Amino acid sequence: MRAPLFEAVPNFSEGKDATKISRITGTVRIISGIRILGLHSDPDHNRSVFTFAGGEDPVLEGAIALAKACAAELDLASQSGEHPRMGVLDVLPFVPLEGATMDDAVRLAHRAGESLGSLEFPVYLYGSAATVPHRQSLPNIRRGGYEGVASRLGDPSWKPDYGPTTLDPRKGAVAVGARPFLVAFNAYLDTRDVEVAREVARRVRESDDGLPAVRALGFSVDCKAQVSMNLTDLEQTPIPVALEAVRSAAADLGASVESTELVGLAPMEAILQTARYYLGLRELDAHDVLESRLYGPSDSRSL
Amino acid sequence: MRAPLFEAVPNFSEGKDATKISRITGTVRIISGIRILGLHSDPDHNRSVFTFAGGEDPVLEGAIALAKACAAELDLASQSGEHPRMGVLDVLPFVPLEGATMDDAVRLAHRAGESLGSLEFPVYLYGSAATVPHRQSLPNIRRGGYEGVASRLGDPSWKPDYGPTTLDPRKGAVAVGARPFLVAFNAYLDTRDVEVAREVARRVRESDDGLPAVRALGFSVDCKAQVSMNLTDLEQTPIPVALEAVRSAAADLGASVESTELVGLAPMEAILQTARYYLGLRELDAHDVLESRLYGPSDSRSL
Repeated sequence: MRAPLFEAVPNFSEGKDATKISRITGTVRIISGIRILGLHSDPDHNRSVFTFAGGEDPVLEGAIALAKACAAELDLASQSGEHPRMGVLDVLPFVPLEGATMDDAVRLAHRAGESLGSLEFPVYLYGSAATVPHRQSLPNIRRGGYEGVASRLGDPSWKPDYGPTTLDPRKGAVAVGARPFLVAFNAYLDTRDVEVAREVARRVRESDDGLPAVRALGFSVDCKAQVSMNLTDLEQTPIPVALEAVRSAAADLGASVESTELVGLAPMEAILQTARYYLGLRELDAHDVLESRLYGPSDSRSL
Repeated sequence: MRAPLFEAVPNFSEGKDATKISRITGTVRIISGIRILGLHSDPDHNRSVFTFAGGEDPVLEGAIALAKACAAELDLASQSGEHPRMGVLDVLPFVPLEGATMDDAVRLAHRAGESLGSLEFPVYLYGSAATVPHRQSLPNIRRGGYEGVASRLGDPSWKPDYGPTTLDPRKGAVAVGARPFLVAFNAYLDTRDVEVAREVARRVRESDDGLPAVRALGFSVDCKAQVSMNLTDLEQTPIPVALEAVRSAAADLGASVESTELVGLAPMEAILQTARYYLGLRELDAHDVLESRLYGPSDSRSL
């Protein structure tokens, strides 16, 4: 049996200084049992999104090492950027991967929150790890950025879950949470009219009585109308079901889907679902894929 | 850089005696750098198909170990089975996987043939490794089974590529070859009429001017008409292109595809191709799949 895997997606408030970014992420890279999945640094937002994965203990160790490095390398008081931010380590979500449940990720978020609290970070738990309903939403917690958090800190309903009840202006506060794996999937329409994309988005998204576990918005990207989706539960709504709904809604409005894109990583199961759906396959799972046998866990030795 | 990978698919003439089968395959299992992909033993045919993969040297070592074990454990003279066979180790194909070309597999087949020849196996090279055109086809080499091979052995055009020019009746001869990875993909039609499946097969297969790198036959399986396909080059004809041709040909004949199945393993790229095709994805490769990052080679550490 393989140990449950988790992904951590810390967002930290440095997107320009490559040396600092390298020193901060380097504290995670050296940890045994950690796989680095991605690093995206945005100079305009002066912010980096770092993604790594592993078992519960290495991921916790990585998150703590990263928080310490952010506190040592960064100074929020002298930092600026377009993105609203409330701390040097701004957001720290944990995502359950293979073998892990959301409850496992919530427990990991609590462990991380407690450790970061003892490192003098005021910690707000959010998402599935939230301890009160009004803190489930990340935008709610970050409203007004650092200054907003500072102004609310005296309010008992905004007492941090862990750590000090005062803000160090160099360090700020951090939101630590648990959330599902998101598949970001965009469809580009054969129209420049962004209103068509917005109407398609309204028809397919859960919040307007569309498909479950689908968030959708319409945008104009490179003069093309784009339906941008987040799929939060592929068992409820797989990629092909979301796409066919978009194709159908677009057709109703006289448009069609020209191309699509996956942003970031997709789980293997999302790709297998897609193949099963369109090929009419009786069955297909990861064990039927050559590379899973070649590079996956070696339980196939028992064949 | 990862070393080129090869698959070996030895067929040996024992499908009943679990102890012998276990001793024979055990000589390969213990080799470092080998992944076992499958073992299928058929008691009626008294034959086992064993699939393993790895770098060139471990796969060669495995093939030699297996050949020695077959010679030690099995006696063709006292063996019987429905399947035509000419040796204790009957067929030994090598398949180029990731990073390997067909030329690499041909070279590996020659190395294996030379080693097996020095172990006193008469060796016929076949498939892409054949040294003369009339030995490319495996059925040609095996025609008449052991007795057929024995009768041809004096003919100069049937002199083995390696090893002795006389047959040890306990050991027999072996065909060692190189062939492409096959994807076996079947489509079940909504008719019991096997003639419909046969006509669909004729329309889609390469040998009747259909799709390149597609072999197809019509069968009746569980009272359903089945179009059984071997796809030998997914760059020429991916799974979705083959299936859409079958769907179209079936529709012309008043039938439709009810379900499909993949037999054995499919390469990840076959599944990615399918997702790209039906989703209209701009791009999608293995690097976009979470599990490839988690379990694949750790070059993503350089991110």
